[in-house]
Amino acid sequence: MEKITLLAPISALTALVFAAYLAWKVMRLPQGNALMVKISGAIRKGANAYLRIQYRGVALFFGGMFIILIVLASFKFLTPFVPFAFLTGGFFSGLSGFIGMKIATAANARTANAAGKCLDSGLQVAFSSGAVMGFVVVGLGLLDISIWFYFLNFWYGSVRIIADEALRIQAITSAMLTFGMGASSMALFARVGGGIFTKAADVGADLVGKVEAGIPEDDPRNPAVIADNVGDNVGDVAGMGADLYESYVGSIVATGALAVAAGHGFKGVAIPMVMAAIGILASILGTFFVKTKENADQKTLLMALRRGVWLSAVVIAIAAFPLVYYMLGKENIGVYGAVLSGLMAGILIGYFTEYYTSDTYKPTQNLARASQTGPATIIISGLSLGMLSTLFPVLVVCVSIYVSYHVSGGGTSFDHGLFGIGLSAVGMLSTLGITLATDAYGPVADNAGGIAEMAHLGKEVRARTDALDSLGNTTAATGKGFAIGSAALTALALIASYVDQIKIIKPEYVFDLSITNPNVLIGLFIGGMLPFLFSSLTMNAVGRAAMSIVYEVRRQFKEIIGLMEGTAEPDYETCVAICTKAAQREMIVPALLAIVFPLGVGLLLGVNGVAGLLAGATVTGFILAVMMANSGGAWDNAKKYIESGELGGKGSDAHKAAVVGDTVGDPFKDTAGPSINILIKLLSMASIVFATLIVKFSLVK
Amino acid sequence: MEKITLLAPISALTALVFAAYLAWKVMRLPQGNALMVKISGAIRKGANAYLRIQYRGVALFFGGMFIILIVLASFKFLTPFVPFAFLTGGFFSGLSGFIGMKIATAANARTANAAGKCLDSGLQVAFSSGAVMGFVVVGLGLLDISIWFYFLNFWYGSVRIIADEALRIQAITSAMLTFGMGASSMALFARVGGGIFTKAADVGADLVGKVEAGIPEDDPRNPAVIADNVGDNVGDVAGMGADLYESYVGSIVATGALAVAAGHGFKGVAIPMVMAAIGILASILGTFFVKTKENADQKTLLMALRRGVWLSAVVIAIAAFPLVYYMLGKENIGVYGAVLSGLMAGILIGYFTEYYTSDTYKPTQNLARASQTGPATIIISGLSLGMLSTLFPVLVVCVSIYVSYHVSGGGTSFDHGLFGIGLSAVGMLSTLGITLATDAYGPVADNAGGIAEMAHLGKEVRARTDALDSLGNTTAATGKGFAIGSAALTALALIASYVDQIKIIKPEYVFDLSITNPNVLIGLFIGGMLPFLFSSLTMNAVGRAAMSIVYEVRRQFKEIIGLMEGTAEPDYETCVAICTKAAQREMIVPALLAIVFPLGVGLLLGVNGVAGLLAGATVTGFILAVMMANSGGAWDNAKKYIESGELGGKGSDAHKAAVVGDTVGDPFKDTAGPSINILIKLLSMASIVFATLIVKFSLVK
Repeated sequence: MEKITLLAPISALTALVFAAYLAWKVMRLPQGNALMVKISGAIRKGANAYLRIQYRGVALFFGGMFIILIVLASFKFLTPFVPFAFLTGGFFSGLSGFIGMKIATAANARTANAAGKCLDSGLQVAFSSGAVMGFVVVGLGLLDISIWFYFLNFWYGSVRIIADEALRIQAITSAMLTFGMGASSMALFARVGGGIFTKAADVGADLVGKVEAGIPEDDPRNPAVIADNVGDNVGDVAGMGADLYESYVGSIVATGALAVAAGHGFKGVAIPMVMAAIGILASILGTFFVKTKENADQKTLLMALRRGVWLSAVVIAIAAFPLVYYMLGKENIGVYGAVLSGLMAGILIGYFTEYYTSDTYKPTQNLARASQTGPATIIISGLSLGMLSTLFPVLVVCVSIYVSYHVSGGGTSFDHGLFGIGLSAVGMLSTLGITLATDAYGPVADNAGGIAEMAHLGKEVRARTDALDSLGNTTAATGKGFAIGSAALTALALIASYVDQIKIIKPEYVFDLSITNPNVLIGLFIGGMLPFLFSSLTMNAVGRAAMSIVYEVRRQFKEIIGLMEGTAEPDYETCVAICTKAAQREMIVPALLAIVFPLGVGLLLGVNGVAGLLAGATVTGFILAVMMANSGGAWDNAKKYIESGELGGKGSDAHKAAVVGDTVGDPFKDTAGPSINILIKLLSMASIVFATLIVKFSLVK
Repeated sequence: MEKITLLAPISALTALVFAAYLAWKVMRLPQGNALMVKISGAIRKGANAYLRIQYRGVALFFGGMFIILIVLASFKFLTPFVPFAFLTGGFFSGLSGFIGMKIATAANARTANAAGKCLDSGLQVAFSSGAVMGFVVVGLGLLDISIWFYFLNFWYGSVRIIADEALRIQAITSAMLTFGMGASSMALFARVGGGIFTKAADVGADLVGKVEAGIPEDDPRNPAVIADNVGDNVGDVAGMGADLYESYVGSIVATGALAVAAGHGFKGVAIPMVMAAIGILASILGTFFVKTKENADQKTLLMALRRGVWLSAVVIAIAAFPLVYYMLGKENIGVYGAVLSGLMAGILIGYFTEYYTSDTYKPTQNLARASQTGPATIIISGLSLGMLSTLFPVLVVCVSIYVSYHVSGGGTSFDHGLFGIGLSAVGMLSTLGITLATDAYGPVADNAGGIAEMAHLGKEVRARTDALDSLGNTTAATGKGFAIGSAALTALALIASYVDQIKIIKPEYVFDLSITNPNVLIGLFIGGMLPFLFSSLTMNAVGRAAMSIVYEVRRQFKEIIGLMEGTAEPDYETCVAICTKAAQREMIVPALLAIVFPLGVGLLLGVNGVAGLLAGATVTGFILAVMMANSGGAWDNAKKYIESGELGGKGSDAHKAAVVGDTVGDPFKDTAGPSINILIKLLSMASIVFATLIVKFSLVK
């Protein structure tokens, strides 16, 4: 075994230590005055309550799945490690989200308080807490991979010895692949459940609070305001963390598995791990370059974050060259191009997302203008903007596929090309530590703004938290673009791994993955439809849950005497409980879809049909997710643009229309859109785990 | 040559004679009072003006393309017939729309007038004029096919003799295939241009008239009201006619071409033509069963139309059995199952469309209820409804693909299976004569309602025209479902034909249509994105054009003294001119996309990439089109549901929210959605026509 693979656990532990250090730095800061402590405590309490209930539900699911997998493994349909790998994947994915949320809910009041000093102090606290989550995700991800890697190496090298190196590596990577399914399942629950929670609370709070009662956003009299702030944490932090944990782990493991088929042997398996390790170190370095001055405008603030990400990317780009050269030799140096194309694609997708969703560019400004003729035109324009915005991300992904396939030797060997595609996903995700930091920063800043508002902090402080919050909207949008792009590339790597797995299970199987094969074609249609179905279910869930919140808030305004006057306190906890319950109930069907469809299609249409399903879902899912994220982001920022005083400002008819756009965009960008990321990965993961079952029992051989 | 093929031209001429008879029957009816004559005249004048300008623009395009094709043909990249076939396809497609629109604009006042007598009279006039268009489309379509079929048979049989029968049939079908591109191009202009016109006028008229000036729909004081009524004709009649002409011709010709590869020889080529001929006769029969009683409710009225369609379908189902038996022999009787599956699929898709869009079912009623919490929730629910509604149509199409492939012998021979898929499209479209009649009936009834309103006809008359109009909404929605479903199956047949054509052009070409081939994968992504891009462009076009109408209507209300009081007349013509100009300008880019993308992808990624592009576009296009059509239809009917007095009725807040939903739905269901049908067919057609060019000059061999 190569010594260089030791870099993986070392970097993973470094990331965790660094995260602990940042967490310590944040935690020793003061939370501010008593009111701030109280509000932050309420948010924390709500978030904890939510996660406790969610994890209880998820534990049931994992328990059930564990038993099913044990049974399947005992019939030899799975290797004996799968059930345990499934559990660890789920556990670490959930833990990433949990820790991220813990620190985020601890940092919100501290950010607001630090913003009382100066803008940079506020930025530092919020960013540091985001970075805790970023490094926890990459640290736990790479640690999990390393542990399994070393354990399986030991197992197949010393206990159940597989003498042939190629076969041994294959056994190792196959077993590792399956633990991604645990991470995916966990991520799905976190994303979908959190997404439903956050938007039900947000939409519900806005519909009654802003529209009916006419009180401002984040007003403490609104009974749903704490639920709204809790939602930011459980959806945008815990959900996002679990999602990207899964992409990160999935891309590394899938690429390792593809390396075997490409004949790169042990070094090929190690390279994505080491790439990830380098990425962690580069990301840590990058965090030190994030700082700003007082009175910085949005552009300067954004540059402060960008500087860190770009620096990390450059370091990775430089370090990857000798790495590839050393590991795979001069003849495979083209693989370096695959890493670069992935890195570039991540940055470009982020750029295009920003272009289409930030109000410093024309598309969102024009969208804001469409609000002048009422809600209908801003909705039409926003949907249209989202659809148009899919063009460049699709082209970027296509170029990335093309380049990474060909520079890695796809022209002469198919498997080499697929390995290249996998590595481009790893390349894109190598900056995850810091990218996720800038992304998870958003909800903390958002919460800080809410606390500043609720605690009636000074105008200057609120101007600072507003600036930080507004920046968070942009980074959240680009973060979503990054999450979707990496999910698409990861899903492609997983599809290739799926095909590989079938070859291992049944070497004599003759594939017909041609799009003129009706089974593939039907798979494409069904797969293409799934993201639509999935989005419909999750958006409906938000609508239903939001409705319950509306009724509850109306009830409280009616029944609690003195609430509107500010002399009585609302009952925040009921709203949190309603959202929690709704999220738990509504996340079950979407989760089952992602497991039932590949199994069902596999049993009815065979291996080729499943491949069609996966390709269809990945293509449509990617496009739909980009559209929803960008429409939603642009509506949000168009509203903010008007609130900044343009086109009549707050309270104008244009503003009212823009609020409608924003409300429609909420479930788009924070529930349905990001959930699709997981859907496409979980579909592939489920297909891989159940591959033996499908090969054995499918009606179509 | 089989004598039975003579049935094709005979049926085609019968259809045309029948259409002429119906037209004569409609035309000899009185138009009503002077005001009605005047209004109808204004609509007719506007529609004619629009079509004149559109055909002038289209003529330029066709002239240019003709020259390009002549050049390509002279370099032997195309057979010499292609340029002429292209022209005739375009000419007949345009003519279908033109005649349909002529009769529709002549029948509107007559329908209103007949409704003065009784409900059935009104229904008869509107349905007869719809039937004129239905039978003109199928008559001209089958006539065009017959003429080319006989001419090419004569040419290759007597002039440039190809002795080998198989090669001769191949030469004939190849040449015939290409004239579908002419029909497609024409259809695109008609659908996109008409779609932009109609919704710009509709949205613009509603935004100022209903919302700002507070005058009812179809109020003669609204300067955009004539443009709105013109739009119904140029979009929903002329556009729809050209669209379905193209599906009809495309499916017959593509299936004929597939018959050659399947080795069914001459009889296989003849069978889709004869199937179509039987369909025409069955449809004519069906029209005699459409009648209703006075005081019929919506359900009874709908049944009146349904009876005709179902009867035709049953006749076709019975007649197809001996036909298949006689033509292809007992050993191929399974092909009959393909025809049946197509017929059934058409009816089922219509049913599911109705279920999701009619206010007699729960989905639309629930949607209406979502309007009670404002425009945002009805938009979210409507989008969600549309997404959910894709599930069953996708499954129906998948079952149809599966069944028609396998019953036709796909299990043993791939080409037999594809021929079966083609025949299922032909089976679905065999009822087109009468299906289109029920569909084109809608705009006539809509116009009649408008004229009744503007001419201040009695309350009873308006109640009858309202009933007819409301029925038209349902048939328009199911008609759209039918158009989309048939477009998807036709596109699949065309993709198969494309692959066939490549085999003919370069028999030694080794396909790799596997979804793991990066070129195919990239094609899938780009193809999948195209319907989104296309929809964005067309919706934006509507938005821009509607804005111009808003400004113009506002200007007239301000500058024309006495307009609001009804003492002065508005300037209808300027609004018509604005819409016309906008439609012409805005349809160019989408049309170019459909030709540039397959060429570009072909040159960069080769034959396999193009196949991926076509598959991706067909899958996403079908799903997106269904979603848009159903969301739009449901919003429209949710509004009508409220207007019928539910949930507070007209003028309530719920109604205002529902109007927003309806306005968003307008470009969905009448511009972007239906345009996608053509996009997916035109992409395939363009790929077929430029196949030689791509094979020769592609960077990827």
